[in-house]
Amino acid sequence: MNDALRDQGLAVKRAARDLATTSNERRSNVLRRVADDLDHRRDDLLEVNRAELARYVDEGAGRDRLTLTPARIDAMVEALRAVAAEPDPLFELVDERRRPNGLLARRVRVPLGVVGVVYENRPNVTSDVAGLCIKSGNAAYLRGSASALDSNRFIVALFRAALEAEGLSPFAVTLVDDVSHETAAQFMGLVGIIDCLIPRGGPSLIRAMREHARVPYVLDGDGNCHVYVDAPSDLEQAVAIVVNAKTSRPGVCNAAETLLVHRDVAPTVLPRVREALFGVELRGDEATRALIDATPATEEDYAREFLDLILAVRVVDSLEEAMEHVARYGTGHSEAIVTSDPEHAETWIRGVDAAAVVVNASTRFVDGGELGLGGEVGISTQKLHARGPMGLRELTCVKWVLLGEGQVR
Amino acid sequence: MNDALRDQGLAVKRAARDLATTSNERRSNVLRRVADDLDHRRDDLLEVNRAELARYVDEGAGRDRLTLTPARIDAMVEALRAVAAEPDPLFELVDERRRPNGLLARRVRVPLGVVGVVYENRPNVTSDVAGLCIKSGNAAYLRGSASALDSNRFIVALFRAALEAEGLSPFAVTLVDDVSHETAAQFMGLVGIIDCLIPRGGPSLIRAMREHARVPYVLDGDGNCHVYVDAPSDLEQAVAIVVNAKTSRPGVCNAAETLLVHRDVAPTVLPRVREALFGVELRGDEATRALIDATPATEEDYAREFLDLILAVRVVDSLEEAMEHVARYGTGHSEAIVTSDPEHAETWIRGVDAAAVVVNASTRFVDGGELGLGGEVGISTQKLHARGPMGLRELTCVKWVLLGEGQVR
Repeated sequence: MNDALRDQGLAVKRAARDLATTSNERRSNVLRRVADDLDHRRDDLLEVNRAELARYVDEGAGRDRLTLTPARIDAMVEALRAVAAEPDPLFELVDERRRPNGLLARRVRVPLGVVGVVYENRPNVTSDVAGLCIKSGNAAYLRGSASALDSNRFIVALFRAALEAEGLSPFAVTLVDDVSHETAAQFMGLVGIIDCLIPRGGPSLIRAMREHARVPYVLDGDGNCHVYVDAPSDLEQAVAIVVNAKTSRPGVCNAAETLLVHRDVAPTVLPRVREALFGVELRGDEATRALIDATPATEEDYAREFLDLILAVRVVDSLEEAMEHVARYGTGHSEAIVTSDPEHAETWIRGVDAAAVVVNASTRFVDGGELGLGGEVGISTQKLHARGPMGLRELTCVKWVLLGEGQVR
Repeated sequence: MNDALRDQGLAVKRAARDLATTSNERRSNVLRRVADDLDHRRDDLLEVNRAELARYVDEGAGRDRLTLTPARIDAMVEALRAVAAEPDPLFELVDERRRPNGLLARRVRVPLGVVGVVYENRPNVTSDVAGLCIKSGNAAYLRGSASALDSNRFIVALFRAALEAEGLSPFAVTLVDDVSHETAAQFMGLVGIIDCLIPRGGPSLIRAMREHARVPYVLDGDGNCHVYVDAPSDLEQAVAIVVNAKTSRPGVCNAAETLLVHRDVAPTVLPRVREALFGVELRGDEATRALIDATPATEEDYAREFLDLILAVRVVDSLEEAMEHVARYGTGHSEAIVTSDPEHAETWIRGVDAAAVVVNASTRFVDGGELGLGGEVGISTQKLHARGPMGLRELTCVKWVLLGEGQVR
């Protein structure tokens, strides 16, 4: 174990302890200060980021995610101001019961403590996550990518200055700046320091988490999301939802990857979808290919998250068959049905096991901002602690408070 | 990986999926049937258990935990009936919000799915855990000790018969009967099958969990619990609470292990405690030993969970020093203050980081039954998912349900 990392971690833990009893006003002020500073010093940050991009060799999605633009900085600034304006998530009374012996038992919301986040290129995650953590009374312990190190350092420095200006420990936002693979594994093993670890990244990061994490974690897993067009259903709604779920932002986890269509409506739905999804590659089963132009779908196509303008398609005989398909291939993220039968909707809602089940709307709404959570630190696809988008409340836990007058058992 | 174990796990997972949509009445009927059968067939179970005890070589706590008695079977029967009578924890509406675009976003409670429990001797855990799991719509996948295998098999067989009588899959309660160490590690690695793993056991089990678990888990950790007697405080209350917290059942996790006393009240409190704790070994710091008879306390005494009639004692100069001590040595279980100053109580409540903070009552109340949760599957000392006693509600997670009329983003 790297002693420097553990010592740093202990300082972060200490900062978390102090932050837990800080007023909402001071916590929110930190976010407002950072928002102002980011706004004023945006040119400096853009310059740091440009130098980083000049050294970056890969093309494609990684480069795009690394890139900061004035619009992206605007979004970071606005997110911080919006989160600062949210009500205080701390010390909310979750429940209260008076026991027969007079003991008053309450549960109240308290911060998790130290929230560790392991993430890839995107420097905006640094600001979003640190803002949500500070607002919810948690220390943010961040381990970003090597490529984004300078932008991340710049953003973290703004947080540290704002924390100090509010009389708080700068360790409440800390970046691990040794970005070797060894430190990543050690970071995931900081038992007694990290109270909740959240990985934001692809399958290799998730494998590394399962292998190396010794602290409690919440998985932000893949989204192999489905849209099932039922019989009966509204044709126009179905087409609009499929197009939106697939194409509005194909690279994100709540985009649709497979379309399932009931046999009875396939002859009307599929040609319209084919036409509307111009430029999207369709990979279909035999029944699909009997109705529209598509390349043959393999078993792997149904299991994959394309994150691209590709859609797997399958014709099913029944609602039950659609649900079987989702149970087999889905990753428990977001699963939509388009139906005009309320009983079918209810069967879907009860029977599909996912973070979000969606009726007659796009899977793309499964997002902390869209659902009014004040942003998100990630989308949990596991069942423990949080499921779906993780906002401020999901960064808290409860504490039992027992108030007595001398009761003994 | 042991293929038989994974195949068995897949059958358990399938059973969980069916159980998730079963009515409360059928789930509760399973518990009532098992309660009746346990009641009628208690002599058979006691005989199986006697044979097990005859083969058991260790003496002490392990043997006591393995032992079933008519009174313990009564408690198992009563617990099942009480849990059956609890309201349905499933499909409760957690929150609901109408978004500006008209989308209705709800969160409802659903089962976790497959709950894995690794535990030691106690056969009553088999019945308690299986009952809570079935009531909350979860499959119980159990891995008990080798010594209790026959009693566990007997109890599981009753559950399986009751499940079948209700037309449900018997796999909803499944015992791993290969009790080798290798299967324990494989069991903890059943990714995609176990949704929540709960270890119930000592430090070696917790170490094994951290090493081998690849599935999400909730730690039922040690309880190094403190009672702090503040100045000012009620002397009689203080003595009664210390005695109860230490001696009413010294072998359990919510028993007190260290007494902290404010310097101003130590001269009155400590002699009374010494007298009341007749037969308890006290290990004190210098200031304690200046006032009463005690053996010298070492650093290790403050860090240890004695689970015995031993109490570490320390005199502190202030509330803050008491809180520092708890932050340093506590395990985040249950921490009590005895005080008559409401501000001190509030400082303790806010500043002590533990599953339960207790004011003027015994730490022994931190228990699912005592707090009215309808029993407990364990007491979580981590912050994710559940904290403190885990009852029916803590065996559920939420699912987002988004209801639209064709909304796209």
